[in-house]
Amino acid sequence: MTVLIVGSVALDSVETPHGRVDRALGGSAPFASLASKLFAPTALLGVVGADFPAEHIGNLRRWGIDIQGLEIVPDGKTFHWAGRYHENMNDRDTLTTELNVLATHHPDVPEPLSRPDFLFLANTSPELQMKTLSQVERPRLVLADSMNLWIDTAREALWEMIRSVDVFLLNDSEAHSLCETRSLLVAARRLLDEGVGRVIIKKGEHGSLMVTRDSVFCAPAYPLERVCDPTGAGDSFAGAYLGHLAQAKTLDEEAHRCALIAGAAVAAFNCETFSIERLSGLTRADVDARCREIHAMTRFEALDSLP
Amino acid sequence: MTVLIVGSVALDSVETPHGRVDRALGGSAPFASLASKLFAPTALLGVVGADFPAEHIGNLRRWGIDIQGLEIVPDGKTFHWAGRYHENMNDRDTLTTELNVLATHHPDVPEPLSRPDFLFLANTSPELQMKTLSQVERPRLVLADSMNLWIDTAREALWEMIRSVDVFLLNDSEAHSLCETRSLLVAARRLLDEGVGRVIIKKGEHGSLMVTRDSVFCAPAYPLERVCDPTGAGDSFAGAYLGHLAQAKTLDEEAHRCALIAGAAVAAFNCETFSIERLSGLTRADVDARCREIHAMTRFEALDSLP
Repeated sequence: MTVLIVGSVALDSVETPHGRVDRALGGSAPFASLASKLFAPTALLGVVGADFPAEHIGNLRRWGIDIQGLEIVPDGKTFHWAGRYHENMNDRDTLTTELNVLATHHPDVPEPLSRPDFLFLANTSPELQMKTLSQVERPRLVLADSMNLWIDTAREALWEMIRSVDVFLLNDSEAHSLCETRSLLVAARRLLDEGVGRVIIKKGEHGSLMVTRDSVFCAPAYPLERVCDPTGAGDSFAGAYLGHLAQAKTLDEEAHRCALIAGAAVAAFNCETFSIERLSGLTRADVDARCREIHAMTRFEALDSLP
Repeated sequence: MTVLIVGSVALDSVETPHGRVDRALGGSAPFASLASKLFAPTALLGVVGADFPAEHIGNLRRWGIDIQGLEIVPDGKTFHWAGRYHENMNDRDTLTTELNVLATHHPDVPEPLSRPDFLFLANTSPELQMKTLSQVERPRLVLADSMNLWIDTAREALWEMIRSVDVFLLNDSEAHSLCETRSLLVAARRLLDEGVGRVIIKKGEHGSLMVTRDSVFCAPAYPLERVCDPTGAGDSFAGAYLGHLAQAKTLDEEAHRCALIAGAAVAAFNCETFSIERLSGLTRADVDARCREIHAMTRFEALDSLP
């Protein structure tokens, strides 16, 4: 089964209490693709400018990601984001957001990529997410992400997009503001009532909550002794989840749960270094070992032990 | 196996977005005792003033709690706390703290209560916790709680107390400030290095983390659609954990994990109403059912599903 990741490709300048990087490879599409390709054949759709280092293009290809959908705008500049994380690693200040080619170009889906089995619509405007969706044959499963900006500025279009996908991914603060409730469970149920089949609410270091009409799954985050840089954690989480689903035999609740745990494992690896440094060297065996660790960290036999 | 709970008995005035109560039964000892007695014979040690309503004394007795250790100071007034929770239910303003009899009286352990199998030293000054500990025959297991006040004002005594107990319970912000680290795992390991055998870090709605030298357990909180009043959640969590341990056949890691899940279940019930309203009517069957729900919410078979 194949995975198509549609998202941003960026050059990120990031400063954390543990150090800094300048114009490193970033953006939702590289993080998610590197995570997804651990499990399933993965193609990336995105756009960069002429300043995008050829080294990154060579690396993406070398890592086994299908980049025929990476459009290079000859007279354009690559999306650039700069941010500084606070001591607590949860809050960050955005220092620079230069949309550059992202502001004017949205790549069309090339014909060879138009029949993905699994599709990740990473964060962009809901209109563009709908446009991409209209350009592919209906995949087996569509996962979409969003952000507070669209909740504030394009709420109706966002709801329409949410109704058009299979799994909607958001973080806790987005759930609070989109659904106007403090309870994540109430927020998830509101989203399900709108017609999406599955909701995943990310809580950063506190794990995630996955809700359907019939089930609630509480997944922990893998506890880290040191978070170097959380940039890309959400996108690598999403990519690993989707890639893991793409290699599952069936798409039952159990497959979604294991996929979510793979997401938690890969997101934690991602936080251990800057940029895609750890992700790019990650093996399936690394992920499997961490999934086993998370399994061991969550086991208890409530039923057996009851008198 | 018997449980002794040593803590405050209070009259609480609490205001939340869902309503308010005035001078309702509160304090660590009633919350923890009501939770513990669901599983094991439980005695309470605490002090109140002459204004303490006889109704509460009758109720505590009727609920099956041994209150021979409840000292009534004839010319004293009961500890009174008043607080207002913010819309987010995580932050609260303390409006009143009248220590009253707590400031001057610390009950001695009466001889019939001096051989508990399990002991909970709820939050008070570490000196008083050590004094209580010196008055009992060494129990099978001693659990202790604390608070930021003692981290700020009695740090050395606090470390000494921590080294003297089996399980130390604290919340995430206390872990950060006591151990001077952002990582809860690093904090837990620092506490273990000091000599305590087991550390439980409470994260409120995000669950808890239990760490020993050999194990890490990530427990979720039971997700609630509506939190009415979180007062007493931590103490009911601790009481249920200790009571559940007191009825376990062995004190192995599995027993501690099931006990922690029972704590999460009971703490969630506690948050559904003001004061001890829900706790006082709770049955063992209610708790078992919720433990099964938490079990269902956390299951995944990582090992089986790996290719």
